[in-house]
Amino acid sequence: MTNVAVVGIGQTKFGEQWRSSLRDLAVDAGCQAISDSRIDPKMIEALFVGNMAGGGFSGQEHVAALVADNLGLNPIPATRCEGACASGALSFRQAYMAIKSGHHDCVMALGVEKMNDVKGDLALTTLMGAGDAEWEGLHGLTFTGLYALMAQRHMKDFGTTREQMAMVSVNNHKNGKNNPLAQFRYDITIEQVLKSTLIADPLRVLDCSPITDGSAAVVLVSDKLAKQFELPVWVLGSAQGSDTLALHDRKSLTEMWATKEAAKRAYEQAKIVPEKIDIAEVHDCFSINEIIAIEDLGFCKKGDGGRFVEQGKITIGGERPVNTQGGLKACGHPVGATGIRQICDITRVIRGSAFNNIKGVKNGLALNVGGSGATATVNILGADI
Amino acid sequence: MTNVAVVGIGQTKFGEQWRSSLRDLAVDAGCQAISDSRIDPKMIEALFVGNMAGGGFSGQEHVAALVADNLGLNPIPATRCEGACASGALSFRQAYMAIKSGHHDCVMALGVEKMNDVKGDLALTTLMGAGDAEWEGLHGLTFTGLYALMAQRHMKDFGTTREQMAMVSVNNHKNGKNNPLAQFRYDITIEQVLKSTLIADPLRVLDCSPITDGSAAVVLVSDKLAKQFELPVWVLGSAQGSDTLALHDRKSLTEMWATKEAAKRAYEQAKIVPEKIDIAEVHDCFSINEIIAIEDLGFCKKGDGGRFVEQGKITIGGERPVNTQGGLKACGHPVGATGIRQICDITRVIRGSAFNNIKGVKNGLALNVGGSGATATVNILGADI
Repeated sequence: MTNVAVVGIGQTKFGEQWRSSLRDLAVDAGCQAISDSRIDPKMIEALFVGNMAGGGFSGQEHVAALVADNLGLNPIPATRCEGACASGALSFRQAYMAIKSGHHDCVMALGVEKMNDVKGDLALTTLMGAGDAEWEGLHGLTFTGLYALMAQRHMKDFGTTREQMAMVSVNNHKNGKNNPLAQFRYDITIEQVLKSTLIADPLRVLDCSPITDGSAAVVLVSDKLAKQFELPVWVLGSAQGSDTLALHDRKSLTEMWATKEAAKRAYEQAKIVPEKIDIAEVHDCFSINEIIAIEDLGFCKKGDGGRFVEQGKITIGGERPVNTQGGLKACGHPVGATGIRQICDITRVIRGSAFNNIKGVKNGLALNVGGSGATATVNILGADI
Repeated sequence: MTNVAVVGIGQTKFGEQWRSSLRDLAVDAGCQAISDSRIDPKMIEALFVGNMAGGGFSGQEHVAALVADNLGLNPIPATRCEGACASGALSFRQAYMAIKSGHHDCVMALGVEKMNDVKGDLALTTLMGAGDAEWEGLHGLTFTGLYALMAQRHMKDFGTTREQMAMVSVNNHKNGKNNPLAQFRYDITIEQVLKSTLIADPLRVLDCSPITDGSAAVVLVSDKLAKQFELPVWVLGSAQGSDTLALHDRKSLTEMWATKEAAKRAYEQAKIVPEKIDIAEVHDCFSINEIIAIEDLGFCKKGDGGRFVEQGKITIGGERPVNTQGGLKACGHPVGATGIRQICDITRVIRGSAFNNIKGVKNGLALNVGGSGATATVNILGADI
């Protein structure tokens, strides 16, 4: 089968982008990716767009058609993929499969979300569409509430501490500080996290990723075309899993079946083991989720995630650097764009042009999670195939 | 490359389904498709779900995860595809490509929309998310308004008459009468159409497809597996095109570039010409669109669509039977489900088990259009490959 490489990346500044519409953000990231790859846009044969809730946030469905039109890509096939907060990675994976299968040689995957234009608590209600609207949302459960339940159980079963969760946010802010595209570019302390506003016990506001506007895009090509690019970054593995939509239907509150399934298959495809992963971008929508992710990806044993963080193993220079450019916590989390932003960050590190550069990184893993874990996608990238 | 066949179909009754939720409808259609195919559900390796606006209509995004969960398909990859009213065909096409490429051997494509649970004019506003929200919707344009503009231009340029448009609705109601799954099962007359409430001049309420709840599903397999099924219906061609999102950006108001591009490629793949298509299911969201579709698919010359209808060529027994089971007008138009319903109807006719049976049909074409034509997908099915 054909191999697939990332040869262009583009990303807007993440944050509150009051002067940019959904359309503006997508066009900005898309043009940057085309420009970075130096391809003729006419080479792009298909477009996949990750967007969770253009309808809820901006009254705009049909987002892939919007993007194809405004990037001047008509009449190529343009398809929106949605899997809540994993929408970005789903669009990346469909783009990857469209090339891997031999259907196309050059495809763009773009993620975009414009979240700040809604009033009051509409953002929260819209986001709850990622969970089970009928069995969870209608009863008043929020997303922080769902992850708070997981955190409570993780603390009870494994002795995970509030301080360990806080350390996730502290590390991500430290890494995001040097990232000009990040929403929050300052250090925070464990004490600040522990004293910040309580949202859903035990999670506090500094455990939570923010509401963000932003877009990210990548250009993918087949190995046939990849030769002409200086620094192609190869997709070594790409897999996706699913789990029950409602949290109460799960066998366990402290592990994600969808992540474990996706990881297992991605590792097999990439012929790699967790111990050989150089860096990881994982889905820290809430601090507890980074701890759960570290465990489900096999970086440590189940239950040891908190201690893994406490021992500094996720820091740059540690055993397994995680969210080296700030993660969702510091970069911000425009839900449909996050999965593609993770790919951009890993690509930058492998290329040697990241905001926090890390020498000798030959591969990276991205984990993008949808909802409370009903969708998970694991993509593994590498310098060599 | 692998060949792909439809081996199972399922469909709920279309209409006002007050006792069924989004979840109920999808589970009903999905189980019927599994049952019809007689496969073990464990064989299904991936799921693609077409849904336009679960968020807007039911507060539920992440619809593919909802469906995978409630059909007991976890942990397989479950991806929602959205392209407005073409969402169903997009999910079908992604399922087709996932098998064609060798990634999977058995995939389900399911379309679902639950549109009647919203109050007042929210359905209209939500549907307008299929157009350009910023440049069309905010200024008060409705979907009927968009198609009314096309109709006005078609009448001016080609002499298409009000009566010819009415004949589209009359033919579709006539065909839908025998379809127990259709929303409207009665004849209407040209006079009734012409006297029905004016919505957007020249389109009247009986030119418009209705607001509908419903779901449809198909099971697709590779040729490796197809041998074990009695009546596999093969996918001979599948293509998708895009055009500007806003109508005012188009070169022409009377033809759809996306349809023409998709048709051209689908005909090439299927090695067939329009004259050899036995039946067609086309996207008659408004009567004028069936006329435009007939022209863009090459069944007659541009501008001759109205006369083609008037001459009875689209009737069962005519030169090119169109919407033989009722089309969107009589079946109803649950937007995300329509593209899959079209595939179900063609499959039934080729199998010889349709509600309106037509002897000797060896192939059929389905055209599913998103918005005012920014997305179009053409799928061609056949009894033999």
